[in-house]
Amino acid sequence: MHAYRSHTCAGLNKANVGETVRLSGWVHRVRDHGGVLFIDLRDHYGITQVLADSDSPAFAALEKVRSEWVVRIDGRVKARDESLVNSKIPTGGIEVYATGVEVLGAVEGELPLPVFGETEYPEETRLTYRFLDLRRQGMHDNMMLRSNVVRWLRNNMWDQGFTEFQTPIITASSPEGARDFLVPSRLHPGKFYALPQAPQQFKQLIQVAGFDRYFQIAPCFRDEDPRADRSPTDFYQLDVEMSFVTQEDVFAAVQPVIQGLFEHFGKGRKVDTEWPQIAYRDALKWYGSDKPDLRNPIRMVEVSEHFRGSGFAIFANLLENEGTEVRAIPAPTGGSRKFADRMNAFAQKEGLPGMGYIFWRKAEDGSTEAAGPIAKAIGAERTEAIRSELGLDVGDAVFFLGGKPEVFEGVAGRARNEIGRELGLTETDSFRFAWIVDFPMYEKTDDGKIDFSHNPFSMPQGGLEALTSKDPLDIYAYQYDLACNGYELISGGIRNHKPEIMYKAFELAGYPNSEVDKRFGGMVKAFKYGAPPHGGCAAGIDRLVMLLADTTNIREVIMFPMNQRAEDLLMNAPSDPTNEQLRELRLRVIPKES
Amino acid sequence: MHAYRSHTCAGLNKANVGETVRLSGWVHRVRDHGGVLFIDLRDHYGITQVLADSDSPAFAALEKVRSEWVVRIDGRVKARDESLVNSKIPTGGIEVYATGVEVLGAVEGELPLPVFGETEYPEETRLTYRFLDLRRQGMHDNMMLRSNVVRWLRNNMWDQGFTEFQTPIITASSPEGARDFLVPSRLHPGKFYALPQAPQQFKQLIQVAGFDRYFQIAPCFRDEDPRADRSPTDFYQLDVEMSFVTQEDVFAAVQPVIQGLFEHFGKGRKVDTEWPQIAYRDALKWYGSDKPDLRNPIRMVEVSEHFRGSGFAIFANLLENEGTEVRAIPAPTGGSRKFADRMNAFAQKEGLPGMGYIFWRKAEDGSTEAAGPIAKAIGAERTEAIRSELGLDVGDAVFFLGGKPEVFEGVAGRARNEIGRELGLTETDSFRFAWIVDFPMYEKTDDGKIDFSHNPFSMPQGGLEALTSKDPLDIYAYQYDLACNGYELISGGIRNHKPEIMYKAFELAGYPNSEVDKRFGGMVKAFKYGAPPHGGCAAGIDRLVMLLADTTNIREVIMFPMNQRAEDLLMNAPSDPTNEQLRELRLRVIPKES
Repeated sequence: MHAYRSHTCAGLNKANVGETVRLSGWVHRVRDHGGVLFIDLRDHYGITQVLADSDSPAFAALEKVRSEWVVRIDGRVKARDESLVNSKIPTGGIEVYATGVEVLGAVEGELPLPVFGETEYPEETRLTYRFLDLRRQGMHDNMMLRSNVVRWLRNNMWDQGFTEFQTPIITASSPEGARDFLVPSRLHPGKFYALPQAPQQFKQLIQVAGFDRYFQIAPCFRDEDPRADRSPTDFYQLDVEMSFVTQEDVFAAVQPVIQGLFEHFGKGRKVDTEWPQIAYRDALKWYGSDKPDLRNPIRMVEVSEHFRGSGFAIFANLLENEGTEVRAIPAPTGGSRKFADRMNAFAQKEGLPGMGYIFWRKAEDGSTEAAGPIAKAIGAERTEAIRSELGLDVGDAVFFLGGKPEVFEGVAGRARNEIGRELGLTETDSFRFAWIVDFPMYEKTDDGKIDFSHNPFSMPQGGLEALTSKDPLDIYAYQYDLACNGYELISGGIRNHKPEIMYKAFELAGYPNSEVDKRFGGMVKAFKYGAPPHGGCAAGIDRLVMLLADTTNIREVIMFPMNQRAEDLLMNAPSDPTNEQLRELRLRVIPKES
Repeated sequence: MHAYRSHTCAGLNKANVGETVRLSGWVHRVRDHGGVLFIDLRDHYGITQVLADSDSPAFAALEKVRSEWVVRIDGRVKARDESLVNSKIPTGGIEVYATGVEVLGAVEGELPLPVFGETEYPEETRLTYRFLDLRRQGMHDNMMLRSNVVRWLRNNMWDQGFTEFQTPIITASSPEGARDFLVPSRLHPGKFYALPQAPQQFKQLIQVAGFDRYFQIAPCFRDEDPRADRSPTDFYQLDVEMSFVTQEDVFAAVQPVIQGLFEHFGKGRKVDTEWPQIAYRDALKWYGSDKPDLRNPIRMVEVSEHFRGSGFAIFANLLENEGTEVRAIPAPTGGSRKFADRMNAFAQKEGLPGMGYIFWRKAEDGSTEAAGPIAKAIGAERTEAIRSELGLDVGDAVFFLGGKPEVFEGVAGRARNEIGRELGLTETDSFRFAWIVDFPMYEKTDDGKIDFSHNPFSMPQGGLEALTSKDPLDIYAYQYDLACNGYELISGGIRNHKPEIMYKAFELAGYPNSEVDKRFGGMVKAFKYGAPPHGGCAAGIDRLVMLLADTTNIREVIMFPMNQRAEDLLMNAPSDPTNEQLRELRLRVIPKES
């Protein structure tokens, strides 16, 4: 017989009754039924019930085993009594009568956190004893889900004609808006490598090198300040790039993969098959977000005209200033003072003085009555015009926010989320997708300068002509995001593959040619030797898995994550270097005082 | 019509004759046949011949295009004259008569290296313009081979019941015998992360966490001094670990994958299906190497007894010293003075005074005659005993090396290679595998101390009892390599999963428990909470691809490799950090003078 097992802990059923078997696994749970010991023996595959009574030669040894010990059990397979059959697990019809036991790995002392029962434990404990935490069913399932998701993505990308290539990890700085992690060079002391924030330049070089459809499940490294929903050090992305394509080609290549993924792993949740394209500006206007949650049917509407010169002085005065507007958030079924007050409180929590509203109720005479101070201030005619335009009725409400859109849009978007959720308008069992397109190429920074608003490598719509003839703030980029349920799942663009357009695009953002050559020299040089039009995108793997696993904590879907202070509590990183290491790298750590 | 192409450059054949098509690609070659231009248009998929004569509206523009420009061609598909059909390529029956052309990406100035023709170019030029180098057919093929190999390995590991998990890249130091690459922490200035030399500890933790069969195509980072056949910074390995297994289980899981890989991608070369297991000491004795090339049938034999007290004083005297022996390298068909002299010269080039030999020829009287000074010195009887033992005959030779095996074995191994190759005994069209097993757990260092000879994490054969009762130098480890054609393809072991055995094993090598806790704390802690017996191995991906691609230069199978000085000539790495970066990391670079 094999040294450790004849079957896995999911491998036995009624067909094996009478067989002599050997199992190995963890002691999931021990129950002592007065003279009869029951042990749930667990491995990667499942759980098998093992029992021993005082007649068993294994009884004395089994009495000593404790939770999470690793043991080998020799025994005979018995059918369970009909009344004790557990139809929920494949081994539920049998049990193994132990005739021998060997302890393969004991537990020293107390368990710092239990595996059985999935009790909540502080995250620091879970991360310090990650090897125990991962034995819990929920974490085990998440890890298997992640692994299967990555496998599925790979297979489907291959099926779509993509080829996976590995790009360098120890490489040059590739600015993507975050800080680089640096790696000091020993062979070239004083010089540093950087870990790639994304394989952006490499995947573009791969296109210039003549490969047509590239993908990679790529590790990306960003030295970012901690935030709950992201890893402070590294993450994985499905990185994609294609040659000789337009934006529509990228969408057509990616949608079947992502849609298929959610259909396959979504546990029956409904998956959108028609993915609308929404202009970036419309997304902000309608949803207050460039990653709108379209499970929520509420679409905001600009209603400035209804307030201009009206008796509601706050908005009327505000609209006298340039660049301001009033936006309405319709709230079907939200027509009660109580709900209106709740939303008002929400707005105050968000730092606003409050949120104006109107709601409609049935008056005592049976007619429709608009309630709330705004209705009174703007009068019946304007109130009715608003109601009619928004298609609202008795029992519904509408909330208003005014000012400069860039100031209130964020809050408006969150209010829209809150309203949809509170009123039960937002679907909870679906994945809704939208491509957000036509991102502006440039934006004005706080100090009034022009800078890239997103990816500087995207092709400006209209090409060189647009750059030389239009107001930079009016230029759109071939740049797009995929939004799903309020998250940005994918970001991408058609790239700027022409050196002269690239130099000009950077010049508008204040970077001279020399700076472009210095920072992106390898890529710009490549574009001078025959570059194909190309574009692509990247999807965050961790986020995909989080959505599918229905968790908002990224550490639930990573095997060995850092904590939020970017520390590995299990392996003790970061840690002090040795003097010899510093000497070899010719580095000195500057004391904190200096 | 699509903005760039209706077909790829491999997509047209006689069935398309008469169609109006659009192609995009690189100008592979231009030929001007006096008024008729022929352009080979190339993309990732293939090559299509485009032509234009002076009647074509595209003619003037096409006259201007040069090699490696990216162009879009509109045209009509024509059948080629029967005499001009090229049956070697799928598009060889047609050509496209160009009616329109658009330059999508021109080349500025001269090409630093040509794509067409695959001329040899200095490696520095190739790496600086890697995007051009990769356009060459040979490199394109190598990259596709690598990608397909990795895909194949993944699919087959899944088919064997393994699951792929990603382990951390920014992590703690994991000593594997090379230097770590360090990554300074910004959030914890003065502290450093390390890039993993291998996911060794993580893959063992995954087993302790209850996952049964892990694999990963894993990036590994080692700050090593440059060597031609390895990357100076990072490489990829197929990393494997399994729970509840013996050495034989690992072999049984791995062989089908590796054997299948070579059968699939070996281009018809013969692939061993019976993989012998050879003890480490036998491998050194028989082949002078722990990664023997078994395509070479020569097996060395110890022949000390034949020389002890013989008339060949050099060996006879040498054998008086403890730990010495004389080894014979049989050389069937090598029986000529000319060959013997050549091998003698080889030995001198290797730093030896020479290599003794005997060869057998037919004497004038038709009898078998032994030639060479050794035969004379030891006399006919001993010479005949040697001949008989080695099964040699007229036309054969034997070479001898004597001394301490650890001193001469390396040269003996190389001599065996040389003899096999020179005499044409070594197969050139096959892959021959062997598991090398029973590695010694410890070795004596130059200063007489006991240290681990290979992986300190391997389980000593005989467990704790062996450690406490045997001479450390007599203890074997459950540790193994897979050798193929003279390379080490795989290395692995059954791990030491018991803390008490691990502490003892390190103690014998001079490490106190506190040092073990400090260096491998996470893993040792995990072993105290219920660890399963486990083991695995790792296979070098780059080397697998090198063998399949029949190259000895690792940079031929990596998309963007470092040069041998660990520099990325295309992206300019490593480079100087900014002062702000150093300040954030609280680091100072010490000037060279100090």
